[in-house]
Amino acid sequence: MVVASPSRTIDDVIKRGEPSWISLRRALHLRPELGWLEIRTSRQVRDALVASGWQVWPPGAGFEPEAAFGLPEPAEVEAALERTGAMGSWEPGSSAVLADLKTGKPGRNVAFRFDLDALPVAEATSTDHLPAREGFASEVPSTMHACGHDGHVAIGVGLAEVLAEVVRNTGLGGQFRILFQPAEEGARGGLAMARGGAVDGVDVFLGCHLGLLATDLNVVVGGAVDMLASVKLRAKFKGASAHAGLEPEVGRNALLASATAALNLHTLAQSMRPGIRVNVGRLTSGTAANVVPAEAELLVELRALHVSDLDWLERRATGVLEAAAAMHRNELAIDVVGRTTSASSDEGLARQVAETAEQLGLWEHIKERAPFGASEDASWLMRSVQERGGEAAYVLLGAGLVSGHHRGDFDFDESAIARGVRLLASVAVALQEKRS
Amino acid sequence: MVVASPSRTIDDVIKRGEPSWISLRRALHLRPELGWLEIRTSRQVRDALVASGWQVWPPGAGFEPEAAFGLPEPAEVEAALERTGAMGSWEPGSSAVLADLKTGKPGRNVAFRFDLDALPVAEATSTDHLPAREGFASEVPSTMHACGHDGHVAIGVGLAEVLAEVVRNTGLGGQFRILFQPAEEGARGGLAMARGGAVDGVDVFLGCHLGLLATDLNVVVGGAVDMLASVKLRAKFKGASAHAGLEPEVGRNALLASATAALNLHTLAQSMRPGIRVNVGRLTSGTAANVVPAEAELLVELRALHVSDLDWLERRATGVLEAAAAMHRNELAIDVVGRTTSASSDEGLARQVAETAEQLGLWEHIKERAPFGASEDASWLMRSVQERGGEAAYVLLGAGLVSGHHRGDFDFDESAIARGVRLLASVAVALQEKRS
Amino acid sequence: MVVASPSRTIDDVIKRGEPSWISLRRALHLRPELGWLEIRTSRQVRDALVASGWQVWPPGAGFEPEAAFGLPEPAEVEAALERTGAMGSWEPGSSAVLADLKTGKPGRNVAFRFDLDALPVAEATSTDHLPAREGFASEVPSTMHACGHDGHVAIGVGLAEVLAEVVRNTGLGGQFRILFQPAEEGARGGLAMARGGAVDGVDVFLGCHLGLLATDLNVVVGGAVDMLASVKLRAKFKGASAHAGLEPEVGRNALLASATAALNLHTLAQSMRPGIRVNVGRLTSGTAANVVPAEAELLVELRALHVSDLDWLERRATGVLEAAAAMHRNELAIDVVGRTTSASSDEGLARQVAETAEQLGLWEHIKERAPFGASEDASWLMRSVQERGGEAAYVLLGAGLVSGHHRGDFDFDESAIARGVRLLASVAVALQEKRS
Amino acid sequence: MVVASPSRTIDDVIKRGEPSWISLRRALHLRPELGWLEIRTSRQVRDALVASGWQVWPPGAGFEPEAAFGLPEPAEVEAALERTGAMGSWEPGSSAVLADLKTGKPGRNVAFRFDLDALPVAEATSTDHLPAREGFASEVPSTMHACGHDGHVAIGVGLAEVLAEVVRNTGLGGQFRILFQPAEEGARGGLAMARGGAVDGVDVFLGCHLGLLATDLNVVVGGAVDMLASVKLRAKFKGASAHAGLEPEVGRNALLASATAALNLHTLAQSMRPGIRVNVGRLTSGTAANVVPAEAELLVELRALHVSDLDWLERRATGVLEAAAAMHRNELAIDVVGRTTSASSDEGLARQVAETAEQLGLWEHIKERAPFGASEDASWLMRSVQERGGEAAYVLLGAGLVSGHHRGDFDFDESAIARGVRLLASVAVALQEKRS
Repeated sequence: MVVASPSRTIDDVIKRGEPSWISLRRALHLRPELGWLEIRTSRQVRDALVASGWQVWPPGAGFEPEAAFGLPEPAEVEAALERTGAMGSWEPGSSAVLADLKTGKPGRNVAFRFDLDALPVAEATSTDHLPAREGFASEVPSTMHACGHDGHVAIGVGLAEVLAEVVRNTGLGGQFRILFQPAEEGARGGLAMARGGAVDGVDVFLGCHLGLLATDLNVVVGGAVDMLASVKLRAKFKGASAHAGLEPEVGRNALLASATAALNLHTLAQSMRPGIRVNVGRLTSGTAANVVPAEAELLVELRALHVSDLDWLERRATGVLEAAAAMHRNELAIDVVGRTTSASSDEGLARQVAETAEQLGLWEHIKERAPFGASEDASWLMRSVQERGGEAAYVLLGAGLVSGHHRGDFDFDESAIARGVRLLASVAVALQEKRS
Repeated sequence: MVVASPSRTIDDVIKRGEPSWISLRRALHLRPELGWLEIRTSRQVRDALVASGWQVWPPGAGFEPEAAFGLPEPAEVEAALERTGAMGSWEPGSSAVLADLKTGKPGRNVAFRFDLDALPVAEATSTDHLPAREGFASEVPSTMHACGHDGHVAIGVGLAEVLAEVVRNTGLGGQFRILFQPAEEGARGGLAMARGGAVDGVDVFLGCHLGLLATDLNVVVGGAVDMLASVKLRAKFKGASAHAGLEPEVGRNALLASATAALNLHTLAQSMRPGIRVNVGRLTSGTAANVVPAEAELLVELRALHVSDLDWLERRATGVLEAAAAMHRNELAIDVVGRTTSASSDEGLARQVAETAEQLGLWEHIKERAPFGASEDASWLMRSVQERGGEAAYVLLGAGLVSGHHRGDFDFDESAIARGVRLLASVAVALQEKRS
Repeated sequence: MVVASPSRTIDDVIKRGEPSWISLRRALHLRPELGWLEIRTSRQVRDALVASGWQVWPPGAGFEPEAAFGLPEPAEVEAALERTGAMGSWEPGSSAVLADLKTGKPGRNVAFRFDLDALPVAEATSTDHLPAREGFASEVPSTMHACGHDGHVAIGVGLAEVLAEVVRNTGLGGQFRILFQPAEEGARGGLAMARGGAVDGVDVFLGCHLGLLATDLNVVVGGAVDMLASVKLRAKFKGASAHAGLEPEVGRNALLASATAALNLHTLAQSMRPGIRVNVGRLTSGTAANVVPAEAELLVELRALHVSDLDWLERRATGVLEAAAAMHRNELAIDVVGRTTSASSDEGLARQVAETAEQLGLWEHIKERAPFGASEDASWLMRSVQERGGEAAYVLLGAGLVSGHHRGDFDFDESAIARGVRLLASVAVALQEKRS
Repeated sequence: MVVASPSRTIDDVIKRGEPSWISLRRALHLRPELGWLEIRTSRQVRDALVASGWQVWPPGAGFEPEAAFGLPEPAEVEAALERTGAMGSWEPGSSAVLADLKTGKPGRNVAFRFDLDALPVAEATSTDHLPAREGFASEVPSTMHACGHDGHVAIGVGLAEVLAEVVRNTGLGGQFRILFQPAEEGARGGLAMARGGAVDGVDVFLGCHLGLLATDLNVVVGGAVDMLASVKLRAKFKGASAHAGLEPEVGRNALLASATAALNLHTLAQSMRPGIRVNVGRLTSGTAANVVPAEAELLVELRALHVSDLDWLERRATGVLEAAAAMHRNELAIDVVGRTTSASSDEGLARQVAETAEQLGLWEHIKERAPFGASEDASWLMRSVQERGGEAAYVLLGAGLVSGHHRGDFDFDESAIARGVRLLASVAVALQEKRS
């Protein structure tokens, strides 16, 4: 029996598949879906995986709803179901996708994780912006794939095709798993998948992201390190309104409470502990000019390199919020709406990624490891694998960005999709071959 | 020729008309329209006035667009036109209604002013709330007649019918004018009508409001005094966003700038000058938890009994806003979105109203004058009449309120409509008779 | 037996005594003493009263130490004793002076109250400033009679001489009491004298002040009304210091806590309740530039026309202080260091003073009553007399001020002393004569 | 001629001199002198250096008064002169001491720098505190050697004796310079000595400090790195006072301006640039509870690892201060009262120090280099030497501290003095020998 070479197979499938992956990316970009509501997106992913021959787990597998953060309001769910029509049904985590590809031969269990969700950002309409010029700019108001997750999904689907073909055509052993996580934005879905067992039994875990530290198309980072532990808090102040002209003293001013909290929260950022950050990202309070504001909402993000420091910071921030509420006799409710843990890519695995990239010769600047400086809830999955003795890396893929992440004119070079598929597939093959 | 008695005529028309006025009020309540966008409402008012035999001026008469505050965004106008369909066309001030009723005999020119607009308040849906129980709660989301202007319009239309009939049936002399002002909420439309000449040539001006100092059905105040001069400022801060984890120092934080402004603006309220008030009624800033907020908007209301003190306060508040913006390197744009002047009802006219109320015997508690404590842009029209030697009063009509103004469960006793018509018509007759 | 006329006697004693009263005023001005430490001053007063024939109570009479606010530190007492040498000994309230003058005939018990203390103000040294030019500027560093209490003492001593002579020479009946209160500045001594019984049995109470609403020499106000209730709080924050470069996060920042408290306390001032005022008069925190400040002290004054409103405001302010401390994990201790109650002069008594002033013909502008706008702890004594059925007034004496109260260049026209003696003595006589 | 061994000579002089150096340290500790006013201290140093045979430059040599920060007020100078009596005369920099020791043989010019000044700290009086128990606690109120500079002076004087003897007794070549710098606390004197040429011609520069990163007696750090650039700003706000009860609106509140500045300055600390720190170390504002505060003073310290970042931070902080002043219509004056530059010890020199320490065998924990985390104005002298091609190191000497720096119970183990002399003298010898 003639066994094809894995690298040749990878080349062939990519040559054949790239146009459809770009096409998929554009379809997703046209109809972006916010976190937890990736109804159409996950359906498309499931269909593609089934078509490639992967064993797809039923919805809800590998997902612990109790550990999900920032779930949508019923009205948002309803609107999403209406938008997606016959494609849809919804429950927490139903958009998570988990699938396996088994070779029947010994080898490692290698998992890849991608994310599905878009952002509440209004897309640029100028013809400078390629999606607008080419007609695939978002048709959903104030919703956009402005962080490249449409590209991630395309890479994931492409990778699934490639790996299935490689397994079919070559003697490659081991086992592969692929995860498409909902609600990465806001750090809402990662813990639920880790707790749900999505990476149980996994030996090697690979997450990836277009851009970030690899904005240039010619950059690859084998593994990010020092990914920060973080928590996102939503603090709701409830005071009492009053006519600002007739009896202001009767009011319990939620705006002044929240403004005081915002200023004082920022004073917590000065710390010599590594990675400490405080950001009050949003404050909304009040209704009309002549009414003492009765309600306010703050969105706060805290980060630290070490979980113990984040715990300390979270206690301090909670104390500031409580005191600010008490100061103006407001009630306060704090919800955790997102959380990441700290994580670092393993040295050996990151080196493997970097070496594979070197061998492929497609990138000019290749770093084994680089400090991440931000947060990602893939960290929960990385930690879960690492704590059971496995290895994990978070790969940064050169993206050829034309603007910043989360901006209305964000866009990446679509050739990054096939390049990403090639790197990840090659790493997958190398990991199994190395083992054997 | 037998001439009917005015008071008998008033009684007759009220007996006949009251059900239709209540019906009009409920129709308006069902389809409330926000300030400047009273397209359907003004059309109904114009039709009713024409039907009663008043001479209705064409849209735009008595309105100076340059003096209008807080006009709507194009998208809001478009949505309103779509909602009103064939009834509509729009330009600034096109919802203002001005009409005259002339007797051809000597006498004073007596003007009445009502307001048309609803509020951005979501109406209560509980069956405790009469409009909900009886099926005329607002069908427009987050829009509600929560300050009784629907009742004012009904009173105005009723008053027009009554006066027309009185003039037809009795020998009453003089002339009457009726004004339906757009955009009273936010103090946006009054100055434009004063500057547009809506009360030029008017000898006696009467404004009115259900409730306020007359929440009880059995109260009438002949004329409010010490109506505060006020200004509403919308301050837009523009800084620069940045990734809060990777490079917070690059941002120019609009949230911190606006929070600092809010706290310091409130310190300006301590003044021994009469009527000084400061309220930051709304603050909105920021988007996501992990982004340094680049934009903020504050809505501020300042008041004073004397215009010179308001000028001083406005300069001080502007200084605080500018400094707060400079502190965090933000740009700042301040717009005046509403303005009232100070005014007081004339003693003689207020006494006339109170005496008429006494004679009618419908109210238990009648005050000639009472301090207003709040602001109303009828003040511009009052001042305009007073400065030319005329008299003005702002009448408060007992309303039987079941909740506070501007609340979702606001409602008034509909019998207040006919009672209001009776009082104002009787005052109108008395003013002409007294003169002759 | 020939009985002299009271008014003639008053004239004679004033002609004779005025130079010595001015001389006394200058001696006091040269050696001012702060509140509670009026050791030399009270000794001089006691000696003068004894010399005039008044019965002087022993030190401590009419004083309840438990009700004294803001007593000095031991080191301050020691320094004062050293400065005054053989003249001194000290305990709380030992500088209060209480004396009686009895006629043995029926009549009312009329009490006069003066205050003894100077201020921690550095006196002007320019020759524009009369005390500097004439050589009686304060020789005590940073201590000055900058509110005219030196003049008050001179008036009190002069009044005592005049009344003693009137009683000796005329048939005047009734009884007189004179109070020299320590620590009026800061509102510290008034309550202790009221609680100590200093005005028990008094029928008519007269307090007085040079200047304030009577800056011009030609003004007299018969009785101040609407004297505000007030409280002075000293809030001490205790956090923890830390090296600001090496481990700022270890600190518990008292400076940020107190700054936050200061800003938010000022937002409480906006109230429609009458007389509400909030002032953070002093903030001191921290030591060196490179140390996280561990301690802070705020001095706060709250006022209201009604005691119930002051209670509300005090609770709110306490809440703000406690929350600010909690926000930065500081401990907090709040002390009341001064307190006044609200009071108003009785109408009849104020009219008597005004009428007497009219009859004397020495002032051009005489008002019966005027709103005070500020606070004075004579209010405790006024209230105490009024609550037992007596009458009280707080008289404002034209002073010919050349600068503002509490300023280093404060000074008054010394002819105001004799004018004050004449007015108060004449009122005293009129009160007894009227009665009989 | 028999030439003694340097190390033997060092041992001998130390054995003989140690008691007198401890005695000197205790005399200095008893009579500490604040920065710029080290009149007696510098006189003692000069006398000791002359006695040891060093060539002492006249006062003012090697000092550029224009570059001095935070000079004392005239009254403070006068008080210091009075305290020191016949020993004293004063001008800026007159307490700086500069001396040379020449061998007449070739070799490097090696300079040592020590600091002279005490701190405004009240010394502990408990018998737990050795200086109190042994009777050499500070007799100057609120002034204390609480950072070990008394020990530094003793080390410097001891080192001078040892080196003089070594030069006399051995064939050692090269040249030595010793600097005793005034006003290290507050970073006030270093730049003036660098600009004044105090290290011109120096090849090797050694600064040192007891404790800091070497609190334990058994620790030596060969050279601190990453000493932070820093600036200390004194910001004076000048508003206008007003009676807080009668007309608060007339005031221009300096307390609110400075509190707002303090809170907002702390928000600048969040930066990913290395070494950024912001501390508002002191805020004083206001006088009495009932007066709107007219003046405020802030003491602010800013730091950064890179001078360019410090420049940026200083501009931002200045902007915040200016805006806060403008917000409350205050005038603002900002003075720089201290400044350091960034510096790092040279690797080779630090290694030399560490190796010498190893050879001496007196310390258990020896590090070549360690990040400093704080600021020191020796940085100006280090930079000056390095920029001309020389080498510099800042040595940390194990101190056996019993409490923290700048605290009232600070104290060090006096055996650290002789140990410090031994290390520095040995390094000096090694540097010359290595060269030859």
